[in-house]
Amino acid sequence: MSRVFNFSAGPAALPEAVLKRAGEELLDWHGAGMSVMEMSHRGKEFMSIAVQAEADLRELLAVPDNYKVLFLQGGASSQFGMVPMNLTRDNKKVDYLITGSWSKKAVAEAKRYAEVNLAADTSDSKFTIAPGQNELKLSGDAAYVHYTPNETIHGVEFPYVLETGDVPLVADFSSTILSRPIDVSKYGIIYAGAQKNIGPAGLTIVIVRDDLIGNASDGTPTMFNYATHAKSGSMYNTPPTYGWYLAGLVFKWLKEKGGLSAMAEINQRKAQALYAAIDGSDFYANPVDPSCRSWMNVPFTLADAELDTKFLEGASAAGLKTLKGHRSVGGMRASIYNAMSEEGVQALIDYMAEFERVNG
Amino acid sequence: MSRVFNFSAGPAALPEAVLKRAGEELLDWHGAGMSVMEMSHRGKEFMSIAVQAEADLRELLAVPDNYKVLFLQGGASSQFGMVPMNLTRDNKKVDYLITGSWSKKAVAEAKRYAEVNLAADTSDSKFTIAPGQNELKLSGDAAYVHYTPNETIHGVEFPYVLETGDVPLVADFSSTILSRPIDVSKYGIIYAGAQKNIGPAGLTIVIVRDDLIGNASDGTPTMFNYATHAKSGSMYNTPPTYGWYLAGLVFKWLKEKGGLSAMAEINQRKAQALYAAIDGSDFYANPVDPSCRSWMNVPFTLADAELDTKFLEGASAAGLKTLKGHRSVGGMRASIYNAMSEEGVQALIDYMAEFERVNG
Repeated sequence: MSRVFNFSAGPAALPEAVLKRAGEELLDWHGAGMSVMEMSHRGKEFMSIAVQAEADLRELLAVPDNYKVLFLQGGASSQFGMVPMNLTRDNKKVDYLITGSWSKKAVAEAKRYAEVNLAADTSDSKFTIAPGQNELKLSGDAAYVHYTPNETIHGVEFPYVLETGDVPLVADFSSTILSRPIDVSKYGIIYAGAQKNIGPAGLTIVIVRDDLIGNASDGTPTMFNYATHAKSGSMYNTPPTYGWYLAGLVFKWLKEKGGLSAMAEINQRKAQALYAAIDGSDFYANPVDPSCRSWMNVPFTLADAELDTKFLEGASAAGLKTLKGHRSVGGMRASIYNAMSEEGVQALIDYMAEFERVNG
Repeated sequence: MSRVFNFSAGPAALPEAVLKRAGEELLDWHGAGMSVMEMSHRGKEFMSIAVQAEADLRELLAVPDNYKVLFLQGGASSQFGMVPMNLTRDNKKVDYLITGSWSKKAVAEAKRYAEVNLAADTSDSKFTIAPGQNELKLSGDAAYVHYTPNETIHGVEFPYVLETGDVPLVADFSSTILSRPIDVSKYGIIYAGAQKNIGPAGLTIVIVRDDLIGNASDGTPTMFNYATHAKSGSMYNTPPTYGWYLAGLVFKWLKEKGGLSAMAEINQRKAQALYAAIDGSDFYANPVDPSCRSWMNVPFTLADAELDTKFLEGASAAGLKTLKGHRSVGGMRASIYNAMSEEGVQALIDYMAEFERVNG
C-alpha cells in the first residue's frame, strides 16, 4: 500500500520528507559509518545533532535567552508531577483550569503535591468551551497557573493567552506546539510530548524560565528535577537520542516550509475548510463553540451513530486512517497536525461529502 | 564510508540486520501505509508489535508468569529512584553493593528515600574486583538488596548470583541483559536501559515480581509507580513506541541466532579472545581480577599513556570506533555487546597487535 492520510491524535503522522531522510541515513549518518541510534550521546557527531536541533527549535519559537530548552523522557504525564514538585516548595497554592480530559489528569496529579484552586472548570459544557479571561477565578498569590491551551480529545482551544500577572503561567502545549508562533515570554513553563507536532513518542520538550529551575521540593526524584537536566544540557543520563534527532529533522522541515507563521496560515486554512464542511452539512456536527475550536483536533459526529462503523470502514478503504473518536467522546476525530497536508484534509472533506450523499 | 565496528558503551551498535529491516519498514510497516512511529499506540497494528515483543523477550529470558515485563522511559537513572520509592513503604532499611560508578549512583539516589546499609564497597580496589558471597554484610531484614551485575565503566562483573534468602534481589542489568541466560526467578526486580543490548536509548525494560507491585510510598509520582504501568500494560500514557518496535526486532534477531545460550557462547569467545590478547602482551593491561572480568565491557590501558591519542586515531582510521575509555578511568574501553561480531573483535585484536609492533 502507498502512504495513507493518517489522522491519528498521537503518535501522529510525520512529514514524509523527514521519514525519507531518516531512512537514507538509517545505517550510516553523514559518513559516520553508524546509525544515529548507535552513537554515544557524548560523541561529537550526536552532540552536533543535539545542539543544532535545540538551536532550530529556539529559532522557530523565538525562545528568549532566559529560558532553558530540555529534551526529556516520560511524556506530559511526567510533567503533571514534575511541575508541582519543582514549583511548590515555598508555596503550595496552585491554580488549575479544567477544560478537558488532559487538564483534568494534570489536576489529579497536582493534588498529590499541592493545594489546587480550580480557576475554571468547564465540565458542565462537556468541554465545548474555553472560559474567558474575566471568568477565571485566579488566586492571585498562587505558585503558578496551569492550563491546557489545546485539549486533544475534546478539540477545544483557548483563543487567547491567559493573563496571570507575576504568577508564572504553565501550559501543556502537547497538541498545539509548533502549529503557529507563540510568545514564549508570556509563559513560565511550556511542555509538550513530542508525538504530535515534534517527532516520535518518547521525547518530551520542556521550555522553562531560568528562575523556575532549582526550587524542587524535598523528595523530588533526581530525574524529576528540572535542575538536573538544565545543568547537564539534558544529558544527565542517556537522552532519547533518536527521537531528539528526528525532532531536529522536523524542525529543519518547518524552517524550510517558512517557519511557524507559514504553518499558521496553512493550519488555519486546513481547519477552516474542515469546519466549513461540517457546519455546511446537517449530517455532520462539531459540538465545540466556534470561538474556541481547535486547529489541530477536529471531533465530529454523524447524524446517525449507527453509521459510524460504515463511515470508518469506507474511510479506511479510501486511505483515510485513524479517524475514530476517543472512546470517552465517541464519533470521529480528525487530527490535522503540521504533517497533515491540505491535500489530506481535502481528501477527507471529499470522502465526507460522498458518504453523506450516499447515506445521508 | 561503509559500516564501522562501533565499540561504544551505549548507545551502542545494533545488529545491521535489524537496522536494515527497520529501514525497509520505515515509511510503510507491513502495508499499513505508515511508519511504526506514526501509529496510535492503542491501534491493532502497534498492539500486535508490542505484544509480540513482550512474548519474545519472555521466551528469551524464560520469564516466569508471576513477573510483569514493563516497557518504560527514563533510563536506569529513573529506576535508581523508582526502586526505593516502590519498595520501602513499610521498611526503610535497604542493602546496596558498591562495585563501580553506577552502583554508587544508585546508592546516592536510594539514600534520599531509605536507610542504606552498604553490604559491600570495593572502592579501595578501584573497582577491580567483585566481592564474594561470604564477604557481603547483608542486613538480613532489608526491604531489598540492590547490586549491579556488570559495571559498564569498570568492566567488572559478578561471576555468581547473590543469595539473599527471602529478601528480594534487585539488579541493574543495563549492560549485561540478554548476553546469556539468567534465572529470573532469583530476582525480585531486573531493570535495564535499552541502549546497550536491547535497542535504542529512551526505552527501559523492568521485569518485576508481582508481589513487589502496588506498595509505592506516598508521594511517589504516578509515572514512577510500578502499579501504574503494570495495570495498563505499559500504556498508561504513550510509550516509546519506536524503541519498543526496535527492541522487538532485536529479540527476533536473538531468537534467529539461537537464543541466549548461543549468544553466551559467542560472547564468551569474544571476551576470551580479547582478554587473551591483552594478557599476552606487556604493552596492554586490564586491571580487573580475572575471576570477575566483564564479557561486555573491556577496559584496557597502554603501557605508555602518551600513545593513547595515536592509538585512537589509528583505530578510527581503521574503522574501529568509540574506543576511548570513560573519563573517570582513562585508557581504552571496548564494549562488545551482542551486536559486536567476532569479526569486529578480531579486527580490534589485529589492530592492537600491529600498533604494538610499530609502537611497543
